Amino acid sequence: MLPCIPAPIAWTPSHAVRILDQTLLPGEEAYRDLETIEAVAEAIRRLRVRGAPLIGIAAAMGVGMEAGRVPSGRVGSGEGGKRELERIYEACEVLGATRPTAVNLHWALDRMRRRAEQAHEAGDDLRAALIEEANDIWEEDRAMCQRIGELGMTVIPPGATVCTVCNAGALATGGIGTALAPVYLLHGAGRTPHVLVPETRPLLQGSRLTAWELTHAGVPCTVLADGMVASRLRLGDVACVIVGADRIAANGDVANKIGTYGLALAARAHGIPFYVAAPSSSIDLDTPEGSLIPIEQRDEGEVAGWLGSRTAPVGVGIWNPAFDMTPAELITSIITDKGIFKPNQISSPALPGSEMPVRD
Amino acid sequence: MLPCIPAPIAWTPSHAVRILDQTLLPGEEAYRDLETIEAVAEAIRRLRVRGAPLIGIAAAMGVGMEAGRVPSGRVGSGEGGKRELERIYEACEVLGATRPTAVNLHWALDRMRRRAEQAHEAGDDLRAALIEEANDIWEEDRAMCQRIGELGMTVIPPGATVCTVCNAGALATGGIGTALAPVYLLHGAGRTPHVLVPETRPLLQGSRLTAWELTHAGVPCTVLADGMVASRLRLGDVACVIVGADRIAANGDVANKIGTYGLALAARAHGIPFYVAAPSSSIDLDTPEGSLIPIEQRDEGEVAGWLGSRTAPVGVGIWNPAFDMTPAELITSIITDKGIFKPNQISSPALPGSEMPVRD
Repeated sequence: MLPCIPAPIAWTPSHAVRILDQTLLPGEEAYRDLETIEAVAEAIRRLRVRGAPLIGIAAAMGVGMEAGRVPSGRVGSGEGGKRELERIYEACEVLGATRPTAVNLHWALDRMRRRAEQAHEAGDDLRAALIEEANDIWEEDRAMCQRIGELGMTVIPPGATVCTVCNAGALATGGIGTALAPVYLLHGAGRTPHVLVPETRPLLQGSRLTAWELTHAGVPCTVLADGMVASRLRLGDVACVIVGADRIAANGDVANKIGTYGLALAARAHGIPFYVAAPSSSIDLDTPEGSLIPIEQRDEGEVAGWLGSRTAPVGVGIWNPAFDMTPAELITSIITDKGIFKPNQISSPALPGSEMPVRD
Repeated sequence: MLPCIPAPIAWTPSHAVRILDQTLLPGEEAYRDLETIEAVAEAIRRLRVRGAPLIGIAAAMGVGMEAGRVPSGRVGSGEGGKRELERIYEACEVLGATRPTAVNLHWALDRMRRRAEQAHEAGDDLRAALIEEANDIWEEDRAMCQRIGELGMTVIPPGATVCTVCNAGALATGGIGTALAPVYLLHGAGRTPHVLVPETRPLLQGSRLTAWELTHAGVPCTVLADGMVASRLRLGDVACVIVGADRIAANGDVANKIGTYGLALAARAHGIPFYVAAPSSSIDLDTPEGSLIPIEQRDEGEVAGWLGSRTAPVGVGIWNPAFDMTPAELITSIITDKGIFKPNQISSPALPGSEMPVRD
């Protein structure tokens, strides 16, 4: 059973990228058709489309769309094909520069680049090849979400209260989410958990997005302010914390939405298991440890106000990192589509089934 | 040198209670004259006037105002006086029911009640007696803030970066604040600290009030979202955390604005000293431990939206406790006007200078 919520991404009939504009939720459910690379880049930068896996999918679809705009006769190998390849490289560069922290974006763009090169060498239809590759990335993510959900179900007791942060649900992925995937599968199996949802300032992805999609799917949830989380965990009835990831370093450190680290500290203080759920595309073996993951700093206005109203006095300093880093030692397990791993096992080559994608 | 900010409370010439309406800051600096007990109660409930010490002062001034409305010839002892005393009791009851967590409110009202009884027995002018008592409470608070600042200065290195939460400044007291008192005195002495200010959702007292009064006084500060605090403390340059208190239990547990407990956990995780600064009127020896302090639950709308705009989907659960409890073991020291104490010494009768006010 799938959660009953509008899909966050789709192709238009002409293979432009259609997104649910997540900046308007929950008040307005509106789609937006992105017909240029710049429009896709703007949508990613402005968080109209967000969530590490979904950003990767959106970027891949953007590249597929760009290939579809090739003037007739210029596909395949040869000089014209080379110029088209250059145009794909450029598109990948523009999209890759939008957000620095999530690795899935770069991972997806690397795949698109490689596929374009293969198509060029083989004299294949570039448009068909890149739309197919984007669909593969999307479908693989859908399947990874499903598998994460099946594995994650095993660590959450029936009817439990669980705590998440930000949005690592259907709105963040090509499927049923990462952190929320086990929640949806448990709900489908009649063992619905109750989900605690920190609102996740500054952009309120918890309150606006996670609470919205859980409510659409019929899963009960409770929204609380971020500063309330530690007190809520102290009450003693929370079975586990489960969050997504924007990038997992080789040593098991995890970059995720700002607030994750404080949540992990609070979980540790109360002996509550802390799970990270992420597709293997979020693992970056090229980054040895979390301190090396670039953390995006976003616009001051996000913290200084809300909905166009300034709430902080003019002239004060503002600190607005979009992500934080949770060290491996605070993480109980990382739930991936390849299995459930201790953080220090995430890059072990000896691990059965550990054919993790390596970014190259 | 006093911080240059508008006073949060004053008498009008006719002894009504004039307050700076803190719900309108920082956008609008507007005073509001409260001429009935119900108006004072409404202002406290709605957080137009807030901060544990200032609530006590406002309530005391409200009782003084009520005594001033005594019809001529009915003051002093005798039957008319008894009826006036009843009216003072009623006023204390209405004001005492506004907010359950801060003990200063009850402490101040107990003083007003006792003074009314003394005046009644002695045949004194009730109005004069109660206005004097309210002024005493206000002046004592001013002096306690000053003393807290002088003592607190000794624990903050010159030019340090310190972190607070909510507002425990001039806007929360009858003087230069509690947690911010040492900051202002250091600033006056040319050793200005930099203050990290978590915005403090849901009502943004950090962003709206603390950042406003620090900016007015010329103290540099940086506002951040509550979920960013743990990451900010990890950077390694924060000398200490210093917060206020709404009630201190006999064992040194501290009730303060929601978010304080998570901040204390993060401070502990990074080896950063965690100080509580509060007047001795915040100590409640009648409450043996923090778990017995009643925690006010506030309206769901505060978390579900902002400035009249709903941000959470309709129908979700909301959790909105106004305060949390930080256990004594996470607190380095409690800075009071009577001295700096380890939390477990706060109720020690053997302590030099520990003539703490006991609520009775």
